[in-house]
Amino acid sequence: MRALLLIAAASALIGAAPAKKLLTPTEVVAAAPASAWKAISPEELLVMDLKDGGRVVVQLAPQFTPIHVANVQALARANYWAGATVYRVQDNYVAQWGNNDSEKPWPKGVTPKPPAEYWRNLNGLAITPLGSPDPYAPAAGFSQGWPVAYNPAAGWAVIAHCYGTVGVGRGLDPDTGTGGELYAVIGHAPRHMDRNLAVVGRVIEGIDRLSSLPRGTEALGFYKDKAQYVPITALRLASQMPPAERPAFEFLDTSSASFADYLRIRANRNDDFYKRPAGGVDLCNVQVPVRRKPSGERG
Amino acid sequence: MRALLLIAAASALIGAAPAKKLLTPTEVVAAAPASAWKAISPEELLVMDLKDGGRVVVQLAPQFTPIHVANVQALARANYWAGATVYRVQDNYVAQWGNNDSEKPWPKGVTPKPPAEYWRNLNGLAITPLGSPDPYAPAAGFSQGWPVAYNPAAGWAVIAHCYGTVGVGRGLDPDTGTGGELYAVIGHAPRHMDRNLAVVGRVIEGIDRLSSLPRGTEALGFYKDKAQYVPITALRLASQMPPAERPAFEFLDTSSASFADYLRIRANRNDDFYKRPAGGVDLCNVQVPVRRKPSGERG
Repeated sequence: MRALLLIAAASALIGAAPAKKLLTPTEVVAAAPASAWKAISPEELLVMDLKDGGRVVVQLAPQFTPIHVANVQALARANYWAGATVYRVQDNYVAQWGNNDSEKPWPKGVTPKPPAEYWRNLNGLAITPLGSPDPYAPAAGFSQGWPVAYNPAAGWAVIAHCYGTVGVGRGLDPDTGTGGELYAVIGHAPRHMDRNLAVVGRVIEGIDRLSSLPRGTEALGFYKDKAQYVPITALRLASQMPPAERPAFEFLDTSSASFADYLRIRANRNDDFYKRPAGGVDLCNVQVPVRRKPSGERG
Repeated sequence: MRALLLIAAASALIGAAPAKKLLTPTEVVAAAPASAWKAISPEELLVMDLKDGGRVVVQLAPQFTPIHVANVQALARANYWAGATVYRVQDNYVAQWGNNDSEKPWPKGVTPKPPAEYWRNLNGLAITPLGSPDPYAPAAGFSQGWPVAYNPAAGWAVIAHCYGTVGVGRGLDPDTGTGGELYAVIGHAPRHMDRNLAVVGRVIEGIDRLSSLPRGTEALGFYKDKAQYVPITALRLASQMPPAERPAFEFLDTSSASFADYLRIRANRNDDFYKRPAGGVDLCNVQVPVRRKPSGERG
């Protein structure tokens, strides 16, 4: 009954006969006007190059974890990750990188024991609701380009652990982790990590470079031999790179009409291939569209 | 408020002070009695060997898609997949294998155009409810070892597209696919595929062999050059192998008390590492425990 009602609602929204097919998500994103795209600052782009030539780009989220993100930025500027590696790849879970086995001193400007930025105050966040139930929180939606789980009654909001989400490795409480060891989700969203680890961003390009690495055979997916570690040849902010070499990205404004269309269609796939719309969608299956900044707009 | 109530409920269930830590999911599974484990028939195990020595084992689900599963079994027995390859690996989506680029005739016993087994009748299925909302269906739970989404009002049930789920590649309607081309989910659960494709099983061992393959660079993750195809050296039922070489598995009975414990703890991680239980869990984050049959029990 619920599904039938939602199919009817979708048909009403496009103002057409019920049999009319919807656009695909890709088509909706392609039709978004330039004004619906927001540039990402080069200070909020972490660019990691792997030895095989692969590049992984992480967008940082200072709105959610300001002290941890400031740490990551300070570590990058101090070239803290010289000699770092990807040393853990656990199937359907995370890839993790940093200076494993090393006890480098923290550079100037780093807060060694940050407070528990496991969530932020909901106040001040405008949220586009997901419109579907979330198993892990009272509500879910999108704010400033990020997928968030939130609790209106308790007043908290967090970036959800979705595919590509980047967080800070830590030990046991009260240690939140400093930011020297980072992980990216490479499997089904491990949402039980929400509010248990500090999220600093998400991979917006090159996640396949991490997700296709061989899995580590030790407990938790650590590589057994150091020979298996994947060397990181460079890990810095885009702002540290020569302007002509900086990658530049923009994301689809999650408060835009284009994003609302995209969200609705994600929940109601109904095109030449998909015949039975679900009438609902998981937060992590609505990946916020990100693209390389079109050339000519750079600057 | 909801989360707090559920934390309280979990504490009540273990009959201890609120500060008491729960067991981890791994500990609960290790404590399950032998009677809680169910053997999988060698007729319902598809064993795929890749050229690099990796093995992928698929459990079939004839209870849900009898005609498609019968096709897969008939194809295996006829050695239909001699020369087959993995020819498509799309990041955060699926790996796909079969006789791409070949038009082999269907062996005897194969139904070339099976009916639309996109879901089955809910009648006759005993279901252990998930206990958390599902964004894609009115209800979700577990039946006979499988994660299912279902609609009590409409009377249908399907195996959900979770990490490792195996389905039948198809063209456009009304073709449901015969079973010669199969895919496995290697990323975040693409649940919009539920009721749009026929699910024949799930990978129970070796999914990392597929998920760590290089991604294809063509549209939909197809490999560009045939040289990138990953040869399959053998693809047959366990029942076709010499008895001494057959892998043997069992799964945790999803109607057992052990599974109920496991499910509750999956929704309320609260141990030395996880401090803030979610009070809920996603269907696809409750992977039904499967293990190699302990030696001595084989036979």
